[in-house]
Amino acid sequence: MRAGAGDAKPTAHAPRTAVAGISGFAGGELARLLLRHPKLDSTSPQFYSRAGETDGGKPGDLADLHPQLSAIRPESSKVFPFNWDRISDAGIELLYLATPHEQSREWVSNAIGRGIKVIDLSGAWRLQYPVNRNVYHFTDSDPQLAAKMQAEAIYGCPELHRDEIRTARLIANPGCYATSIILALAPLVQSGLVDLDCGIVCDAKSGVSGAGKAATSKTHFMYAADNLSAYSVFGHRHTGELLEQLNLTSDQIQFTPHLLPIPRGILSTIYLRFTRPVQSMDVTTIFREFYKYSPMVRLRDTPNLPNIQHVVRTNFCDLGFELSRDGKKLVVVSCLDNLLKGAAGQAVQNMNVMYGWEESEGLL
Amino acid sequence: MRAGAGDAKPTAHAPRTAVAGISGFAGGELARLLLRHPKLDSTSPQFYSRAGETDGGKPGDLADLHPQLSAIRPESSKVFPFNWDRISDAGIELLYLATPHEQSREWVSNAIGRGIKVIDLSGAWRLQYPVNRNVYHFTDSDPQLAAKMQAEAIYGCPELHRDEIRTARLIANPGCYATSIILALAPLVQSGLVDLDCGIVCDAKSGVSGAGKAATSKTHFMYAADNLSAYSVFGHRHTGELLEQLNLTSDQIQFTPHLLPIPRGILSTIYLRFTRPVQSMDVTTIFREFYKYSPMVRLRDTPNLPNIQHVVRTNFCDLGFELSRDGKKLVVVSCLDNLLKGAAGQAVQNMNVMYGWEESEGLL
Amino acid sequence: MRAGAGDAKPTAHAPRTAVAGISGFAGGELARLLLRHPKLDSTSPQFYSRAGETDGGKPGDLADLHPQLSAIRPESSKVFPFNWDRISDAGIELLYLATPHEQSREWVSNAIGRGIKVIDLSGAWRLQYPVNRNVYHFTDSDPQLAAKMQAEAIYGCPELHRDEIRTARLIANPGCYATSIILALAPLVQSGLVDLDCGIVCDAKSGVSGAGKAATSKTHFMYAADNLSAYSVFGHRHTGELLEQLNLTSDQIQFTPHLLPIPRGILSTIYLRFTRPVQSMDVTTIFREFYKYSPMVRLRDTPNLPNIQHVVRTNFCDLGFELSRDGKKLVVVSCLDNLLKGAAGQAVQNMNVMYGWEESEGLL
Amino acid sequence: MRAGAGDAKPTAHAPRTAVAGISGFAGGELARLLLRHPKLDSTSPQFYSRAGETDGGKPGDLADLHPQLSAIRPESSKVFPFNWDRISDAGIELLYLATPHEQSREWVSNAIGRGIKVIDLSGAWRLQYPVNRNVYHFTDSDPQLAAKMQAEAIYGCPELHRDEIRTARLIANPGCYATSIILALAPLVQSGLVDLDCGIVCDAKSGVSGAGKAATSKTHFMYAADNLSAYSVFGHRHTGELLEQLNLTSDQIQFTPHLLPIPRGILSTIYLRFTRPVQSMDVTTIFREFYKYSPMVRLRDTPNLPNIQHVVRTNFCDLGFELSRDGKKLVVVSCLDNLLKGAAGQAVQNMNVMYGWEESEGLL
Repeated sequence: MRAGAGDAKPTAHAPRTAVAGISGFAGGELARLLLRHPKLDSTSPQFYSRAGETDGGKPGDLADLHPQLSAIRPESSKVFPFNWDRISDAGIELLYLATPHEQSREWVSNAIGRGIKVIDLSGAWRLQYPVNRNVYHFTDSDPQLAAKMQAEAIYGCPELHRDEIRTARLIANPGCYATSIILALAPLVQSGLVDLDCGIVCDAKSGVSGAGKAATSKTHFMYAADNLSAYSVFGHRHTGELLEQLNLTSDQIQFTPHLLPIPRGILSTIYLRFTRPVQSMDVTTIFREFYKYSPMVRLRDTPNLPNIQHVVRTNFCDLGFELSRDGKKLVVVSCLDNLLKGAAGQAVQNMNVMYGWEESEGLL
Repeated sequence: MRAGAGDAKPTAHAPRTAVAGISGFAGGELARLLLRHPKLDSTSPQFYSRAGETDGGKPGDLADLHPQLSAIRPESSKVFPFNWDRISDAGIELLYLATPHEQSREWVSNAIGRGIKVIDLSGAWRLQYPVNRNVYHFTDSDPQLAAKMQAEAIYGCPELHRDEIRTARLIANPGCYATSIILALAPLVQSGLVDLDCGIVCDAKSGVSGAGKAATSKTHFMYAADNLSAYSVFGHRHTGELLEQLNLTSDQIQFTPHLLPIPRGILSTIYLRFTRPVQSMDVTTIFREFYKYSPMVRLRDTPNLPNIQHVVRTNFCDLGFELSRDGKKLVVVSCLDNLLKGAAGQAVQNMNVMYGWEESEGLL
Repeated sequence: MRAGAGDAKPTAHAPRTAVAGISGFAGGELARLLLRHPKLDSTSPQFYSRAGETDGGKPGDLADLHPQLSAIRPESSKVFPFNWDRISDAGIELLYLATPHEQSREWVSNAIGRGIKVIDLSGAWRLQYPVNRNVYHFTDSDPQLAAKMQAEAIYGCPELHRDEIRTARLIANPGCYATSIILALAPLVQSGLVDLDCGIVCDAKSGVSGAGKAATSKTHFMYAADNLSAYSVFGHRHTGELLEQLNLTSDQIQFTPHLLPIPRGILSTIYLRFTRPVQSMDVTTIFREFYKYSPMVRLRDTPNLPNIQHVVRTNFCDLGFELSRDGKKLVVVSCLDNLLKGAAGQAVQNMNVMYGWEESEGLL
Repeated sequence: MRAGAGDAKPTAHAPRTAVAGISGFAGGELARLLLRHPKLDSTSPQFYSRAGETDGGKPGDLADLHPQLSAIRPESSKVFPFNWDRISDAGIELLYLATPHEQSREWVSNAIGRGIKVIDLSGAWRLQYPVNRNVYHFTDSDPQLAAKMQAEAIYGCPELHRDEIRTARLIANPGCYATSIILALAPLVQSGLVDLDCGIVCDAKSGVSGAGKAATSKTHFMYAADNLSAYSVFGHRHTGELLEQLNLTSDQIQFTPHLLPIPRGILSTIYLRFTRPVQSMDVTTIFREFYKYSPMVRLRDTPNLPNIQHVVRTNFCDLGFELSRDGKKLVVVSCLDNLLKGAAGQAVQNMNVMYGWEESEGLL
């Protein structure tokens, strides 16, 4: 399952890229990253709204949606109403979808049909098994076509699927919680040392940007500030990603998300037991070996544990752990920025892999 | 203008009180204060919703609206749909309105007509001059009746209008920003020492609860947190209260509100010049003399200045000042809790004055 | 283990109380609660500093240490240097110690020897077994006397030890994390339904006041704000309280604390498995039965879970839970205010029990 | 006073740079900016500690001081104990001092004597007039040499002194508050339209990073969070910078700083009166004209006002204003990131000017 370093050849030219659905938090981060990406030239990226986000079909301005981006590259600051003809005319080769799940589900076949590669940041294509995907209640207008697309979709976690990503046409960019937990657990679960009978407990905490830009009673400052709350116990949509990517059953892993009173960042505290006592050095070796070709995962030396400030506004996932004195219980702490390694940054990392660039290009 | 200590006689019985419009932040604080007020008996208070806030006319539960109030006095926890007959049948003698401006404007005459006293927390009745009141765009269905009510309304700042409040039937509870600025300035302006030609500058900052419970782009955690923003420059609705209560023109005072990334509290920094050099002791004397009968105003000793933590969750307004070395420029800092001294707490303070109780009863 | 309602007789008079070590956060909350406690008369409480906290033996002022307490009861606002003669002369009958662990360990026998009851808020007397107590590294000057005191100490969790508290001379007020976890788990563990082989996982998160008033790199705003960090994994001092009060081994329960970017409040998320499938109603019954005489524990109805805002600035511990669909896995969420139910509030609750008053007296 | 665009020639080679005093917040930001600056090659920058910051003369690791910088450019991650011989041996040509005021005051002549240019981030060299500089209480060991250095120092605000900066050997990087106020006022004061008799009021608010990394009672989370406080009224050290750079007397401008409960960012609200009524367009023109060659100042279109989120983690200073209806009163809002445009970013901007690069190089 783990991806090797490979030897992809860099492509000769910079692909023409576009982002559809630029208004959200992840869209804004994606714009920022792409505008300063060293491998993209001045024709990239182009920005497109979701339906209804620009006034009467007239182009809007990126700085109106994301004021902190004004005056950075004024010539690239227009936001156009989404339109397939315009996309084709512009010769777009790579399309980022930062659109709602349903819209991504609907649009992808059109893009692929036009020969455009897609990196989709929604949950539309992450889950291969209907039993897991059911939580999204998709009603595909052309189920056969959807099934074909689904079969093509690669789960865009480069640390696990680097080789498949290189040649993929459709990347399903992982969920933020799922990324933080999968990166912490994949090496351990694959080692065969984890006692799966007792189950793995994942207690995850995320900043408010994870709840999206919509103003609701839960994103109201008066609810979120000075507070902490658990939600979606036994029922969060990212659970299916854990099951599929780690090859576990719902009896073997459970995950509880919490809403933190901070703008961004995820910290997951993960509890597991080993089937036999191990040494701290064994755990270190398992992680180091697994991530030796992965520049965006940093292992903190025990007893230092990562915290959210270490990773906020970076594309790193930081891992650290503490082993009980008897060598049988492990606590892993995994931190990342939900808008970067958990969304826009990982999307750019996937692009880097697809085009044979340094995996961390434009991300440091 | 300043109110003396007077010699009101305590009333013999506890009035039956009700709160209409219990769902907002001020309504919740009012419920908390009244439920534990020592002078109110077990029949008080009764809680009523605004229109549309309870499901199909069935009574709701206070703890659903304000979970932190659950299990305090379970027998008083019902919230009824607002209904004049029910109010009359219950023998309500004092009605708090924590309703939108327009609803307060409309309801008051009905209450007064039934012999019920009203303490209105909205902006409906605070402004006597149409030129100031216009910012609310009221369209009174019976303008003559509205004018009669308006003429009766007493601006509910006990430190300024204690005597009128004692006998009032309609109290217009002051705005939160206005209270913090008026209490800082009334003694100084009355002293005649302030240079009004250069104008008084009031730079005020408020926590997010001042923006209300509605989920909007401005109350979204991602906007309000880690931020500060100025708004309504030269145009905030509380400006009229400053003009009327301090007897100033708009050329003599200006006020800019800011949104602070905290749940509650207001700090106003006020800048003025004196017509002649004064001593720090003079300023202290002006304040102490003015507030000698006012238990809810605390003057901090220079050079200590109040800050928001000193007053949050209290009904105090804390004042402090710093005089320039030449004795000509003064900076006054005024702090209060916008939901208490700036809303619910001042409303209870007004009730205490109306019924001849200790002014700080139930507020310490 | 669970405490019944009993039938203690109220005592006839108000005990003279004092607080030693008034400068910290818990000391400030204790002052606030005692100053307005309905059963204490105007001679109570008296406030004493820790060594070195007042200038040259001169009394200080409570409002200098806790500005938000100024002007509440000015006649009770002095803080005296701690001195046993003064304590005796004042006829103190109940002494709260909000002092460092070591000082509490040293002072208690002196107080008991003078016939003064003690409620100690430190960790000095909470742990009966040396193997657990060793984490504090106490060096008792008179080990025999210390052992005698230790044997007398009652763990001051009224929900578990109400009867012993009534007649105790020395109350060891529980730790904040420990209280939140013990109240969530005691009913379940006693039910015999918990699968202890797989172990109970307690993921606890606390606001910064739990880290104390000392300015350190961890309590610096720039570290604590916009952050979350795990600490003391497998090694927090409150672990021993869990083991002793729940009668578990360190293999059966583990606990990881986290530092939340909020001033106060604890939320513990607790994961356990049942030995056989149960129904949601069974769990509700277990909790309701256990806490039927406990006014300070509130069970939220599933699927509502408590959050920190529900309990902050109250003495409640709120519990809620979610059961997996197969009835085998349970997640319990427990919330309390670390300075109240986790410290000063529980201390006052213990006083209420000791003197036969309503358990929630002065705490609602 | 305003600086023109000039026509400096780019230098051929990248200067060898070093930062002394790397441990603070500004030092960390400087490291981050220089490590990714496109014009600096792999030998730059070198990092040096302040005295006492590394253990026994052994080099430390940048990632230990600033964990978020780990794994970015591992080969440049060492922090050496400061030592003039090492600085000389390394051929350093440009030295950033992020050291305490006194150390900067002492070290500069040594650097200049060795032919090393200096950009000093402290307050050591910002003030030309002793009457203003006295607030720092410097005791120069060689007053004559200090006077010579002082005469050479250029106030490093490129928007005002671009030409002098190009050829300077010693740059006094401006204070954070001062930058935000000077950039807002310089165009207006120079226009001659401001009524200086009534005085300009500057109400400034800064995040906690402005208070430095030292753990104190004021930087404690429990003090800073959920709070706002004014401090140093009439006495802040940056006042002298305003007087000297704007050529005003202390009777013509006053400035009150406040501590905001956020990590970083400054918002200054500035109040002034015009000597005659003006139009909004006049004010816009004054700003646009003044800053036409200044890429790091952005003017927001009225009625949009900048807020702190627009500028945090950028080197921009955003300006916006609101004019009273009578055209006589102006409120200017000025926002910047105190660690970037208010410190490390402006320092890099100064380097860009000194070496003839794009002024925004490495800063977008």
